[in-house]
Amino acid sequence: MQTAKHHIEPAEGRLGVLMVGLGAVASTVIAGVELIKRGLAEPIGSLTQMGTVRLGKRTEDRAPLIRDFVPLATIDQLVFGAWDPISDTAYEAAIKSGVLDRYVHIEPIAEQLKEIEPMPAVFDQSYVRRLDGANVKPNAGKRDLAEALRQDIRDFKAAHSCDRIVVIWCGSTEIFLEPGPAHWNLAAFEAAMDANDETIAPSMLYAYAALQEGAPFINGAPNLTTDVPAMVELAHKTGVPIGGKDFKSGQTLLKTVLAPMLKARMLGLEGWYSTNILGNRDGEVLDDPDSFRTKEESKLGVIEHILQPKLYPQLYGDVHHKVRINYYPPRGDNKESWDNIDIFGWLGYAMQIKVNFLCRDSILAAPLVLDLVLFMDLAQRAGLKGVQEWLSLYFKSPQHAPSVYPEHDLFIQQTKLKNTLRWLMGEEQITHLGMEYYQD
Amino acid sequence: MQTAKHHIEPAEGRLGVLMVGLGAVASTVIAGVELIKRGLAEPIGSLTQMGTVRLGKRTEDRAPLIRDFVPLATIDQLVFGAWDPISDTAYEAAIKSGVLDRYVHIEPIAEQLKEIEPMPAVFDQSYVRRLDGANVKPNAGKRDLAEALRQDIRDFKAAHSCDRIVVIWCGSTEIFLEPGPAHWNLAAFEAAMDANDETIAPSMLYAYAALQEGAPFINGAPNLTTDVPAMVELAHKTGVPIGGKDFKSGQTLLKTVLAPMLKARMLGLEGWYSTNILGNRDGEVLDDPDSFRTKEESKLGVIEHILQPKLYPQLYGDVHHKVRINYYPPRGDNKESWDNIDIFGWLGYAMQIKVNFLCRDSILAAPLVLDLVLFMDLAQRAGLKGVQEWLSLYFKSPQHAPSVYPEHDLFIQQTKLKNTLRWLMGEEQITHLGMEYYQD
Amino acid sequence: MQTAKHHIEPAEGRLGVLMVGLGAVASTVIAGVELIKRGLAEPIGSLTQMGTVRLGKRTEDRAPLIRDFVPLATIDQLVFGAWDPISDTAYEAAIKSGVLDRYVHIEPIAEQLKEIEPMPAVFDQSYVRRLDGANVKPNAGKRDLAEALRQDIRDFKAAHSCDRIVVIWCGSTEIFLEPGPAHWNLAAFEAAMDANDETIAPSMLYAYAALQEGAPFINGAPNLTTDVPAMVELAHKTGVPIGGKDFKSGQTLLKTVLAPMLKARMLGLEGWYSTNILGNRDGEVLDDPDSFRTKEESKLGVIEHILQPKLYPQLYGDVHHKVRINYYPPRGDNKESWDNIDIFGWLGYAMQIKVNFLCRDSILAAPLVLDLVLFMDLAQRAGLKGVQEWLSLYFKSPQHAPSVYPEHDLFIQQTKLKNTLRWLMGEEQITHLGMEYYQD
Amino acid sequence: MQTAKHHIEPAEGRLGVLMVGLGAVASTVIAGVELIKRGLAEPIGSLTQMGTVRLGKRTEDRAPLIRDFVPLATIDQLVFGAWDPISDTAYEAAIKSGVLDRYVHIEPIAEQLKEIEPMPAVFDQSYVRRLDGANVKPNAGKRDLAEALRQDIRDFKAAHSCDRIVVIWCGSTEIFLEPGPAHWNLAAFEAAMDANDETIAPSMLYAYAALQEGAPFINGAPNLTTDVPAMVELAHKTGVPIGGKDFKSGQTLLKTVLAPMLKARMLGLEGWYSTNILGNRDGEVLDDPDSFRTKEESKLGVIEHILQPKLYPQLYGDVHHKVRINYYPPRGDNKESWDNIDIFGWLGYAMQIKVNFLCRDSILAAPLVLDLVLFMDLAQRAGLKGVQEWLSLYFKSPQHAPSVYPEHDLFIQQTKLKNTLRWLMGEEQITHLGMEYYQD
Repeated sequence: MQTAKHHIEPAEGRLGVLMVGLGAVASTVIAGVELIKRGLAEPIGSLTQMGTVRLGKRTEDRAPLIRDFVPLATIDQLVFGAWDPISDTAYEAAIKSGVLDRYVHIEPIAEQLKEIEPMPAVFDQSYVRRLDGANVKPNAGKRDLAEALRQDIRDFKAAHSCDRIVVIWCGSTEIFLEPGPAHWNLAAFEAAMDANDETIAPSMLYAYAALQEGAPFINGAPNLTTDVPAMVELAHKTGVPIGGKDFKSGQTLLKTVLAPMLKARMLGLEGWYSTNILGNRDGEVLDDPDSFRTKEESKLGVIEHILQPKLYPQLYGDVHHKVRINYYPPRGDNKESWDNIDIFGWLGYAMQIKVNFLCRDSILAAPLVLDLVLFMDLAQRAGLKGVQEWLSLYFKSPQHAPSVYPEHDLFIQQTKLKNTLRWLMGEEQITHLGMEYYQD
Repeated sequence: MQTAKHHIEPAEGRLGVLMVGLGAVASTVIAGVELIKRGLAEPIGSLTQMGTVRLGKRTEDRAPLIRDFVPLATIDQLVFGAWDPISDTAYEAAIKSGVLDRYVHIEPIAEQLKEIEPMPAVFDQSYVRRLDGANVKPNAGKRDLAEALRQDIRDFKAAHSCDRIVVIWCGSTEIFLEPGPAHWNLAAFEAAMDANDETIAPSMLYAYAALQEGAPFINGAPNLTTDVPAMVELAHKTGVPIGGKDFKSGQTLLKTVLAPMLKARMLGLEGWYSTNILGNRDGEVLDDPDSFRTKEESKLGVIEHILQPKLYPQLYGDVHHKVRINYYPPRGDNKESWDNIDIFGWLGYAMQIKVNFLCRDSILAAPLVLDLVLFMDLAQRAGLKGVQEWLSLYFKSPQHAPSVYPEHDLFIQQTKLKNTLRWLMGEEQITHLGMEYYQD
Repeated sequence: MQTAKHHIEPAEGRLGVLMVGLGAVASTVIAGVELIKRGLAEPIGSLTQMGTVRLGKRTEDRAPLIRDFVPLATIDQLVFGAWDPISDTAYEAAIKSGVLDRYVHIEPIAEQLKEIEPMPAVFDQSYVRRLDGANVKPNAGKRDLAEALRQDIRDFKAAHSCDRIVVIWCGSTEIFLEPGPAHWNLAAFEAAMDANDETIAPSMLYAYAALQEGAPFINGAPNLTTDVPAMVELAHKTGVPIGGKDFKSGQTLLKTVLAPMLKARMLGLEGWYSTNILGNRDGEVLDDPDSFRTKEESKLGVIEHILQPKLYPQLYGDVHHKVRINYYPPRGDNKESWDNIDIFGWLGYAMQIKVNFLCRDSILAAPLVLDLVLFMDLAQRAGLKGVQEWLSLYFKSPQHAPSVYPEHDLFIQQTKLKNTLRWLMGEEQITHLGMEYYQD
Repeated sequence: MQTAKHHIEPAEGRLGVLMVGLGAVASTVIAGVELIKRGLAEPIGSLTQMGTVRLGKRTEDRAPLIRDFVPLATIDQLVFGAWDPISDTAYEAAIKSGVLDRYVHIEPIAEQLKEIEPMPAVFDQSYVRRLDGANVKPNAGKRDLAEALRQDIRDFKAAHSCDRIVVIWCGSTEIFLEPGPAHWNLAAFEAAMDANDETIAPSMLYAYAALQEGAPFINGAPNLTTDVPAMVELAHKTGVPIGGKDFKSGQTLLKTVLAPMLKARMLGLEGWYSTNILGNRDGEVLDDPDSFRTKEESKLGVIEHILQPKLYPQLYGDVHHKVRINYYPPRGDNKESWDNIDIFGWLGYAMQIKVNFLCRDSILAAPLVLDLVLFMDLAQRAGLKGVQEWLSLYFKSPQHAPSVYPEHDLFIQQTKLKNTLRWLMGEEQITHLGMEYYQD
């Protein structure tokens, strides 16, 4: 199953990273990268920076760092920019979001953070009701707004002498939108833009601008954005990879290992009650039922896809799955989840698993941003375009080909990612069969 | 990577299952199988009975039941016997252990359970201090005891017209033993038996007897038993598969999905504190520090092997891992674990995961017994002998070839098991690469 | 502070207990009392049956059982009846609610339980939307319905030769009602009944009927019912004690000891997040936002009253208190709560307390019903009428005199109850000063 | 029950606080007091600084601050000194113990903290095995060591112009000692000192020195120290109050409200499993089984004394109570406890309460130190001597008169403390009877 190594363009020059939303996540990413550049912190949580990939047999003892194995851009090549309706610099955003220790992780790089001022955003409160801001582009019609974003991208690229650009959505959750006629194909999409159709959300304008400018687009929120045929068509047309949606960081990360565990053991599931408390801007936005619905849809799907109730009706045919998110200011960015999982085993006897995750939202999300930027840039240089299912590992709701179901199981996702890297570099696929160690 | 289908002998006739220890686990298995035979309960938790295996592409929609895919013995072909130093029948053991609801799951099959009386055991209190019993074979020297067990196996096989026998250890945890000279090879082992060497534990006599009689031996406790060269040599000599050790049922099951999750995400681990409360016979036995040490060694290894501190010294180089087990009678068989996991992410920020598992020891173990019996019997009919690493999924401390490290990650174990079944049946290995769905 | 002993009428004859609602709680009470009468179970959780009261100095060693100290009716004197819109007998209700083990606690007294058939209820779905039933009195106007209930009480009393009657609401939570003009005094109330005013809820008709018939009325739900001046006026007029509201059984019970603990230690409180999952009829009813609001009001008040934010603005002036209840069928009657309590101590440092209560709703409520019935009957025989604040211990939202704030602290409530018993019987009040043990 | 106001000497001049042990707790107290003096922090957790006391009827609305009600020394009058076998200043101790944020709570008062250098300690490693240090007085015999401590006290008092001194043990847990002949009376004690009897622990020499110098002594550890007749005799002879033992700060604080809750409701208790993880010096010391035993005894007693198994054999006659403490370095001073409480209710049905307390050891202990110092000084000025049972609120194992059982219930302790303050000031005792609000 060994294949020829792919041709991959080298990762030369500067890689511009444009972030939609300069809040807790974006400022944590930027501060972290600046600290790491200076040797003041470590890129914990980043597969591209710290991960290895096993090659060949277990007895060969080959496990290079991923960044030594595939030609990724380096941390030092990254240049950051952002859009945000609130005009705080990265420094002000980092202070306000309360994620990082001010004296240890913000002040030492204050100068760099202060230089990053957000460009005026394309923002419309009817899509994110609990947010407001003045650093907004004048409403000149959706097509013109998209063109203004394209100009921003070109300007940033020129001003910072970037060779390539990646755009990543680190912004808020928009209200729930279902795919409609305006999303069926590129022509319909562009006509809808011209008509200022309400099913064209701001996030779509960012994605459209990025793809038109040849920049990969990554969607860190559960918004519809690129998860529609029109965007996939555009990505293929301009030869650009896309990925999303919704960073898989805390509670859902846990779900995508615990549900596979139940299935691996054929333990039944009667109910799964998930509640969350968080007090950051994200929590405030999700306090709006319409934004919450978008997030809820993203969070509810994983269990059904992993557990395959059609294959296992006795085990997973009637699962009571509830997801609750509560805005609870005492917590700030320190999101906490509590899951109660009602399972049943041999002869139907009930058992319970309870998981309490005291996590940090932006600390978990930041390395995902870094990895996705670097992997998407790699994908583009390797000639991969459209949906990058091999990056499913990073998403609550991974975009996938229409012909297949999504893979939510974290370990299938990991195998897929690593075997894709092996395939790109012409190394043998790992199957874990390993019968050779036991043959006489 | 498709291979020719293996030759596998058909699963004809009756399969005798001899259990060492007729306590909570064994009586729960037997009662369950009898209820399932009568359609009064479902084999929840059993991969062999309820699991499927995906074949081919995701788009092919082929996912037969494992029991339809590989030629396993059926539930109806099973016949049970046991040894135990306590002379309770399976009925009495089921009542006393308090695992099953008396009115719903014991009385309807009382007659069958009462028929199963344990054969006198090979038992020595110096190996299991907190246990005692009168249904014990006279101490006639270790070699003679082994021969008496061989005779028991032959007698049972004849009396119940069995075609094949599998022996499985469902008994207590012996005191901690390290591999020594008596275990290096079969000749040394037999000489040590003759000399009544104290490093030959009772569990080894059962294993020796089984292997000599051509019966696969499965070790459900953390005892050393077959995890020594002498036993592997004997298994190869008599052409018998062996497997162990220590059923992976509750807290360790969780560890082997949560530790891989941390590694998949490159999240660091500072400490893992695991405590357990249980009130059954197992808890009483583990209240003896020497028995606990055997269990502790079995439980401590998984994190180190999964996290590979040598590959990831910054993440996993200094983990404080504590495992505590407390005998706490209020719980009976309803073992409960509480894990506190101190992790760190981006830039070193600390987070915590706490898992509280209210499980049922025997309910989790019972389907593992069923699966292992059926898979080991399959292995033997397929001509596989010696260590069956593909059954690692079921063990806390899976036995493996000396040339390789053990695989503790539940998902690698699952891939290994399912790809082994595919390999046995001549089906293609699954790699999750899946690039074909995205090629133009 | 010793006072003369009060005159209390003796507890002679049969005491009829009429329960509004024959569901999980009522059937658990009735079954329990029948089992206790037969010596088949113990009245665990009942202060009247198992509690003691310390008299005099610690050195006197006097601590009689409460039932030996004050003249309570005995278990054997109790006779049960009920109203319910669903026509299930107590036997059917016990089976369906799944609280008690069928073989151990229902079948042995099946005959007695089957005899208890609910009288047709006064029921109106516009007050309890998620409930329905056919065993309902014809809607003949509110005054006539009240008269019909009075007749039911008289009939029951006669049919069962009762000397006295107590009526207790064990039914569902009605939609939220605020006290209005119809509740200001008895005349207004009766006029509103005649006008079929919508602010006269069904629960008020039961209370009105009971008080007119000279029967104490106890309100186990958070409904407004007797917590209005009109009802207090009626109680004083007919010389009847009343008590309510909302049994304090699980999560709120914990709150009323944990909040006092924080205050005893001057630990600050930043937030308290309380979530509940339950799957019984109560959970279903509370799934209606209007019923939930009634319950929420009842649950939210305790923290504010205990912590006195006006006295302690730095500690308790800005508490984020959230209460959530989720209908989650896997649990049935086994309600579970999870509380996260964000506190702060010395110099403002944050700490957390998390409490997970795996309780049983009806098991906790049943002994409260028994105690309240017996204590209310005692109160009536002792000539106490109107609001019985000394029974605050039993309620989430204790009714109290308009001149004072309610006491929610469980230990103040307990002191109040026990010192009231001492006062009734002419014993000295306990102050815990105890300086006499240390005087030279 | 109103009594005449006591005579209390005014709180004039400086109050010297000598702390035995200058580690995490002591440095947190000192830093906090210095910050509070400067208005940089608030004395959260301190009853003397923030607490109020209700006087008279609920309708009177009288609830003065305790420090306005009774004549306490003020924060500004306090002067600190310490002994410790490790020569770190309070500044170094504060940095090393990792309790306080360096930039926010240590550096602003660094100068004051650096001035506090510990006097050489009386220390003997055979009483605290896991601790070592060089700042130790030469071993000159126990009597001479006690005299050296007396001289230290006199020197400190003179050097800092103190009017009064209080000595408080904030040091480690010594090995388990049982009261023996050397402790029966003062003469025996002094003879044993002269003989260097091993039952005279170092902590006793500190207490002896303090009492001889007329300074109240408070015991914050579970050491035997003053809890022997000889010390009570000495306290009475020199007219000095004493108090102890073992600060009640975290898990035990919770126990002393949860156990009374169970009793208030007559809920049965089958088992209570308490585990703790902590990583500070205290954790290290308790890793020695002999020190742990001292702590365990202190922690185990509370449940038995509160639940009165002799009065309630059916409810509390057979409780499985386990306490575990694990040294787990990831936590540092952030001690965490997990309690599993197995209770039973109506008819014997089982329920569970689980409490997870993420606390901070020194943050919880610091305000107790402040309160005890101020209250003990008050007691002395009020002429109270010997055991101060009214301060039981602060201790895991409150010292008490031989004629009575100890009061562990936090709310009885609180009532006792507040009624003692009322008694001292000639105010009426509060009984919570409150019948006057309901009399016609």
